[in-house]
Amino acid sequence: MNSNQTMVKMVFDRWYALIQKFDTILNSLTYDQLQKEIAPGKNRGIYLLGHLIAVHDDMLPILNFGDKLYPELNKIFIESRDKSITQIQSARELRTCWSKQNEVLTQKFNSLQPDDWFEKHNSVSSEDFIKEPHRNKLNIIITRTNHLSYHTGQFVLIT
Amino acid sequence: MNSNQTMVKMVFDRWYALIQKFDTILNSLTYDQLQKEIAPGKNRGIYLLGHLIAVHDDMLPILNFGDKLYPELNKIFIESRDKSITQIQSARELRTCWSKQNEVLTQKFNSLQPDDWFEKHNSVSSEDFIKEPHRNKLNIIITRTNHLSYHTGQFVLIT
Repeated sequence: MNSNQTMVKMVFDRWYALIQKFDTILNSLTYDQLQKEIAPGKNRGIYLLGHLIAVHDDMLPILNFGDKLYPELNKIFIESRDKSITQIQSARELRTCWSKQNEVLTQKFNSLQPDDWFEKHNSVSSEDFIKEPHRNKLNIIITRTNHLSYHTGQFVLIT
Repeated sequence: MNSNQTMVKMVFDRWYALIQKFDTILNSLTYDQLQKEIAPGKNRGIYLLGHLIAVHDDMLPILNFGDKLYPELNKIFIESRDKSITQIQSARELRTCWSKQNEVLTQKFNSLQPDDWFEKHNSVSSEDFIKEPHRNKLNIIITRTNHLSYHTGQFVLIT
């Protein structure tokens, strides 16, 4: 195993461990529980689920894997605060999106070779990438894993 | 910048960003607020602070940086649940530990060269490390950053 392979494994071990952790919590919750707030006056479980799907969906164009699967989620779960839009997807729909998305992401991730992860992503210019080689595709996984961890710590509170 | 340097920068950028985020939240809280639970019946802010200091303290021996600074925190903030031990450090004491610890950790981290981070840590045997080279020192920072992110997502709820 060369050092790029090692680094890719380190990063994806965390990503998949967190996805599995979130998935286990999600599967333990009823539809009613997903409507609960993580703490009084804070985001509801269903909003966090939609927010994570929307943020992970953004990785597809950033990593050059094609278009988003659910572009309609952006306005509701990233641009807007929870409870500011009353008409949102049902918990059942979001559960389906979450599962489907994880299948697609895993398939796309597996299509890259370790060295590919150190290439630039689509949110950085070629000029900037020469000066800032850490702004590579693997860094997108690192930052999104931390984001997922942050919200998993909140999501677990409604169990 | 070679690929090991790039990887080390990617990982430590996240670590320091999270430490700063937690620090900003901590500085915004009064001593009274630190006694509040993050959600009804869940951990208090002061417990999360002690828990993070205890977990980060463990990195010192694991990374071969010497003894723990606060070994007495382990029993209270890792082995025991919140509120099961009534005599714990004060919020003032823990704030001081947190600041001092971050100074020490930063100094220790800066003493290593990028390639050193891909050496084995002290919680893995030499035999296992040959088969599992991802169990290196940098991986300790990756996992602890995710852990810090998880609890920062909870800590922010008491603001």
